[in-house]
Amino acid sequence: MLKELSPKAEQLRQELLKFMDDYVYPAEQTVKEYKETASDRWTIPPIIEELKQKAKAQGLWNLFLDHPEYGAGLSNYEYSHLCEIMGRSLIAPEIFNCNAPDTGNMEVFVKYGTDEQKKQWLEPLLNGDIRSCFSMTEPDVASSDATNIQSSIVRDGDEYVINARKWWTTGAMDPRCSIAIVMGKTDPDAEKHKQQSMILVPFDTPGVKIVRPLTVFGYDDAPQGHAEVHYENVRVPASNMLLGEGRGFEIAQGRLGPGRIHHCMRAIGAAERALELLCRRAESRVAFGSTLAEKDVIKEIIAESRIEIEQARLLTLNAAHKIDEHGAKAARKEIAMIKIAAPRVSINVIDRAMQVFGGAGLTEDFPLAEHYANARTLRLVDGPDQVHLRDVGRMELREQLKANELRQ
Amino acid sequence: MLKELSPKAEQLRQELLKFMDDYVYPAEQTVKEYKETASDRWTIPPIIEELKQKAKAQGLWNLFLDHPEYGAGLSNYEYSHLCEIMGRSLIAPEIFNCNAPDTGNMEVFVKYGTDEQKKQWLEPLLNGDIRSCFSMTEPDVASSDATNIQSSIVRDGDEYVINARKWWTTGAMDPRCSIAIVMGKTDPDAEKHKQQSMILVPFDTPGVKIVRPLTVFGYDDAPQGHAEVHYENVRVPASNMLLGEGRGFEIAQGRLGPGRIHHCMRAIGAAERALELLCRRAESRVAFGSTLAEKDVIKEIIAESRIEIEQARLLTLNAAHKIDEHGAKAARKEIAMIKIAAPRVSINVIDRAMQVFGGAGLTEDFPLAEHYANARTLRLVDGPDQVHLRDVGRMELREQLKANELRQ
Amino acid sequence: MLKELSPKAEQLRQELLKFMDDYVYPAEQTVKEYKETASDRWTIPPIIEELKQKAKAQGLWNLFLDHPEYGAGLSNYEYSHLCEIMGRSLIAPEIFNCNAPDTGNMEVFVKYGTDEQKKQWLEPLLNGDIRSCFSMTEPDVASSDATNIQSSIVRDGDEYVINARKWWTTGAMDPRCSIAIVMGKTDPDAEKHKQQSMILVPFDTPGVKIVRPLTVFGYDDAPQGHAEVHYENVRVPASNMLLGEGRGFEIAQGRLGPGRIHHCMRAIGAAERALELLCRRAESRVAFGSTLAEKDVIKEIIAESRIEIEQARLLTLNAAHKIDEHGAKAARKEIAMIKIAAPRVSINVIDRAMQVFGGAGLTEDFPLAEHYANARTLRLVDGPDQVHLRDVGRMELREQLKANELRQ
Amino acid sequence: MLKELSPKAEQLRQELLKFMDDYVYPAEQTVKEYKETASDRWTIPPIIEELKQKAKAQGLWNLFLDHPEYGAGLSNYEYSHLCEIMGRSLIAPEIFNCNAPDTGNMEVFVKYGTDEQKKQWLEPLLNGDIRSCFSMTEPDVASSDATNIQSSIVRDGDEYVINARKWWTTGAMDPRCSIAIVMGKTDPDAEKHKQQSMILVPFDTPGVKIVRPLTVFGYDDAPQGHAEVHYENVRVPASNMLLGEGRGFEIAQGRLGPGRIHHCMRAIGAAERALELLCRRAESRVAFGSTLAEKDVIKEIIAESRIEIEQARLLTLNAAHKIDEHGAKAARKEIAMIKIAAPRVSINVIDRAMQVFGGAGLTEDFPLAEHYANARTLRLVDGPDQVHLRDVGRMELREQLKANELRQ
Repeated sequence: MLKELSPKAEQLRQELLKFMDDYVYPAEQTVKEYKETASDRWTIPPIIEELKQKAKAQGLWNLFLDHPEYGAGLSNYEYSHLCEIMGRSLIAPEIFNCNAPDTGNMEVFVKYGTDEQKKQWLEPLLNGDIRSCFSMTEPDVASSDATNIQSSIVRDGDEYVINARKWWTTGAMDPRCSIAIVMGKTDPDAEKHKQQSMILVPFDTPGVKIVRPLTVFGYDDAPQGHAEVHYENVRVPASNMLLGEGRGFEIAQGRLGPGRIHHCMRAIGAAERALELLCRRAESRVAFGSTLAEKDVIKEIIAESRIEIEQARLLTLNAAHKIDEHGAKAARKEIAMIKIAAPRVSINVIDRAMQVFGGAGLTEDFPLAEHYANARTLRLVDGPDQVHLRDVGRMELREQLKANELRQ
Repeated sequence: MLKELSPKAEQLRQELLKFMDDYVYPAEQTVKEYKETASDRWTIPPIIEELKQKAKAQGLWNLFLDHPEYGAGLSNYEYSHLCEIMGRSLIAPEIFNCNAPDTGNMEVFVKYGTDEQKKQWLEPLLNGDIRSCFSMTEPDVASSDATNIQSSIVRDGDEYVINARKWWTTGAMDPRCSIAIVMGKTDPDAEKHKQQSMILVPFDTPGVKIVRPLTVFGYDDAPQGHAEVHYENVRVPASNMLLGEGRGFEIAQGRLGPGRIHHCMRAIGAAERALELLCRRAESRVAFGSTLAEKDVIKEIIAESRIEIEQARLLTLNAAHKIDEHGAKAARKEIAMIKIAAPRVSINVIDRAMQVFGGAGLTEDFPLAEHYANARTLRLVDGPDQVHLRDVGRMELREQLKANELRQ
Repeated sequence: MLKELSPKAEQLRQELLKFMDDYVYPAEQTVKEYKETASDRWTIPPIIEELKQKAKAQGLWNLFLDHPEYGAGLSNYEYSHLCEIMGRSLIAPEIFNCNAPDTGNMEVFVKYGTDEQKKQWLEPLLNGDIRSCFSMTEPDVASSDATNIQSSIVRDGDEYVINARKWWTTGAMDPRCSIAIVMGKTDPDAEKHKQQSMILVPFDTPGVKIVRPLTVFGYDDAPQGHAEVHYENVRVPASNMLLGEGRGFEIAQGRLGPGRIHHCMRAIGAAERALELLCRRAESRVAFGSTLAEKDVIKEIIAESRIEIEQARLLTLNAAHKIDEHGAKAARKEIAMIKIAAPRVSINVIDRAMQVFGGAGLTEDFPLAEHYANARTLRLVDGPDQVHLRDVGRMELREQLKANELRQ
Repeated sequence: MLKELSPKAEQLRQELLKFMDDYVYPAEQTVKEYKETASDRWTIPPIIEELKQKAKAQGLWNLFLDHPEYGAGLSNYEYSHLCEIMGRSLIAPEIFNCNAPDTGNMEVFVKYGTDEQKKQWLEPLLNGDIRSCFSMTEPDVASSDATNIQSSIVRDGDEYVINARKWWTTGAMDPRCSIAIVMGKTDPDAEKHKQQSMILVPFDTPGVKIVRPLTVFGYDDAPQGHAEVHYENVRVPASNMLLGEGRGFEIAQGRLGPGRIHHCMRAIGAAERALELLCRRAESRVAFGSTLAEKDVIKEIIAESRIEIEQARLLTLNAAHKIDEHGAKAARKEIAMIKIAAPRVSINVIDRAMQVFGGAGLTEDFPLAEHYANARTLRLVDGPDQVHLRDVGRMELREQLKANELRQ
């Protein structure tokens, strides 16, 4: 490895690998059966809460949080290795209290929350007692350009009044979801990047309406789900404003760096899982006189996957390391690059695995199709590839110009 | 157009286009709502039966069948143009009684059925009164190599006894499904391509067990569905054997040519629908100062899609025409080529459209993700790409060798 | 075939195939040796002139020209089939007097030339006695945007004075090159698309300076070559102006349609040649225990190539047919599409062949690398892919919008 | 950076960058002009020898060699960073005495040479006084499978008699080339991987015949060139056998690891150069109303290039580091992966740059097309991609199987 893991991180990695083998993979089937037979899909499979307790007891808990007190105090580089492992199973992140959007929300509370907010929301989140959501995207505008966001947050005495039509509010269907961070305009006349703010909305506040769960391909991703949520004349105390009016973009930026690392490393974990399944399947199935594994066309598929995965992992680890060394702002190009590269690789590898599995790969008998849907979504989350490509291109041009000047 | 449509086909095309605009697209939402609210998803939305009657009344019925008496008597080339239009909506094929696997099954009855079988099964199928399914693929073996199929069909006096574990039996969940064509081994000791037979199994025969519906990327494709079906000591009269023992591959081959044309033209129709939706969306959404349609990166996406669609359509029409002129056997290479090319194009175009739609494209608010799942499935149906690529490569090598000899 | 060839075209096709086998392929080696040993590469290999006479004698001459008197009177669709065959060998087009840029120039003379110009330039060109060139692209500006072209053509009494720095003037190195068509600005203040004109410059006019031959991937393409040509105060009679001042774009447009069909069909011919060579090589070479042809990875390469070629050919034939039926203007989208698609396919197939040939494929022992260089150039000739993609995207959006309106 | 460079390596890197700017890039034009005007292309441009002296004087010499006495004693990881920089110019590697195949040959002498051989050949090579070549590939067999190699090396008393038809003997055209390492069969009856040996052949030995220079695309790569060389009854002392009879594969393996790192890092350097040129060109050219750099489609091209380069570099550095830590044998998969990935990336990036340059990119006015030809060659050197893909697939399957067993 170009950069060794610390002994602490390496030990956590070993424990995590073992926990995955011992508990998480076997629980996938249990969760699947629960969802198929539960009278209400939007309830929590008991095995999840059991495993959460077990993970917490073993110290495999809140590993994402670099804060030494609230979390495990790992660097982004270190946590990336653990995050990848969690990404191998769709049920894993929650078991270790490392699931989006709670991770990002907890980071926001750590960075920007008042003591009271921390006590009220951060602590139960860190404990895994409640869950949270993040309401940013809107159905009515191209939210890839965040300046398009139309929701209004209007000061009225000691309160803010929120009116917003949001969707893709992941986790909002979860019965444990207690708090939302909502983005909207406090000042439509301000300078473009000062119009938006973020505010806390307790999920039981009158006016919060869960309109419907959205599906991704045919998945509802119960029991967390992705909801369309309308906020109709929702009133919250003025103290619920995060950081201050007009600072929504600032918070969004701070939230994005590590969050994208997490998304990407999980996507790479999903790719690793798919490649492992592909190889095992290829060993076990016979067609036209030999196992699939003996066929050169399958070996090529495997090789291409391994090459893509290694490159995407190195790129992501490099970005994580740059955040550790120089901060998320200095690593903007690196972060944008992985946001483009990692989901693509994950999609490619899972797609190849589906092809080797035949029809079986499309079903829920194997986690491939669901991982695929998840990875495909990542090409849109936090902005479509096109937006990031343009940003990377712009930054590269600027750097080349500067380098060129320096040499003359 | 390189080859003009006959006036009859052109008129049907115009009528079909109008019927789609007038009835089918608007019904998509109705069907969606029916499925979301029905107490049992495995029931038929009334709108479907209504539109079937309307289509039948207008003569937009059984257009797939080239038989002049049973069907519309169109050539494969002609029907391809109509089939593409039906492919634009996932609910359309059934409305015109042109949905798989019924189309292939009806062709089998026309070609290989006895008069009695035609009376009992073909007529109600042609009428749209019942539906049928086709049980070939097995979960336990790589069915891409059809010689792997393990199900047993054993003669016992005047009956055959069938024991089979099948899956991907599309349409088996449909409450109207009345008859299955089942493939299995009658003689494990025969020459490799003479071991398999096809036999008719009325779906209410004792021992037919629907184990479960399968999902494709989370979609259950209700109410037709794709079922795992077990046939346990199922007994049918010996006269249910199609064409004769050991002739399963022969029937499979005869069934495949037109069926693949249909699959491919529907996939192209889905791509056209996606491109249309993409363009409309691009005109209507604004990001970073202009509509998406004004951006060159979006124009490139549109152009690539148009170029791919045109090529895939021409390739498929060319294959259809070759079947018309020289028969399915002579067109084997052409058919294998479209089986590879058309689903890919459909996947590419729909994927681009999803990217332009953002999150909305992943939901059921638009038909994109479901069309995607459908097109992705096509890369596996009737064998994965890899099998067809090898076949095309082999045929090409043979032809090159022969051409080379002729020139010397 | 979706559209049969006329008996006349079919017969020409058969004769052309035979001529290629009998004379052209064997002459490739002769030409190669001539070039390697000639004291001056910029002279004509005698075998070329011999074969020209032979081809002319057999009526395989000027087949590109649809004019019934000057040429063979074939439709674009018909000629496309012949053009593809000529494209299989880099020395072939000239042998049949069907090489660019002479073909386009002859078309310009037929369409826009005065009787006198026809007598002076068209007739010897049709006879293959002289050759011509076309000076449009300039090194100093992005000529993909033809409005950038800076050369000046200034009226001075009965003459025009031309000052121009041109390059990529194909054929200008040829000792037989006698006439150039030069594009430049007659009126920098006119409306954007009326500034440019085309004018005839006899190549022995004082002030015409051949600066140097350019290379394409190391090839000088002798003896035609691609020259940088400077026109320094070159004076020609006012009657040399083609069609009239400010009509340069009009001529360029008229010239482009058939010319792009030719380029694309030749590119497809090159791909066919490469695939043939690939297959033969794969049959004859053994590695790791079997011939390359027996390996599935090679069969996949062959299949992908065949699929791509068929599609590109159909797309190009379809465009040719549309020009025949509706004129080049109505076929603008179709022409732009093949301009993008056909060179790509040619590049892909030749590249795969090179990979199968190993090092041999990079040398001049086989025509692969030179065909590759040629096909790669096509992605830039008449504008880079990016320009055509944008155009196709724009036309598609317009058509979708219109279709949508019609349906409402 | 995931792993920092040592201060020594970092300082060399800075000096190398400066040397490139000060001397190497400016010399490219001088070398080009020398070749265009020299009466004999197969002679050394004086500027090369001048810069060699300058580089040697500055200690920028033999940096590739990890041997602390003969070379700079840098690790593979460290040298990779320097090698990439040299790869930016095709004339650079020789200037720093780091050009293939001399580097590999020098490594062979260091590892396997006798003291006498070192004195006679290694020392003048290290001094840059002579050059060497490596004769392995044969025109008559698929040399991708090295067991195919047919040349014979027969013991006859105190001598070996060599009969071999070799080609792609890079450097053999160089007037300074003095020594060849030749691979051939000493024992056709031995076990497959013990049949081949490597032997030293002084280039002035009777029977060594340079048949012709080969071209790559249209480049002759003078004055080094790639020659077809025949060895006809060439007699050398028995002591010229390297390491011992039957150990040819062993030497080949030992030679390959670092050599591939070098090839790949140079390819990445070429990609960086191309991207730099692309960006500068895009800033300076205007089309359709804005600079190319302002267009989003160009920004995408730039971003894709940056993403690909970063990934390929990290993959290669990772492989270099693994060789440093665990030896070339343990790093076989890593080395095979970069052999596939790095040339592809280089090809992609250079190809995009050519597209942005338009016709200019194909000429020798810019180094793009020649770098392209070079990178394309790399997909064949040391075996085509297909061979390495199969190897990576096979190793991956083996590791997955093992990992799976360990977990159970």
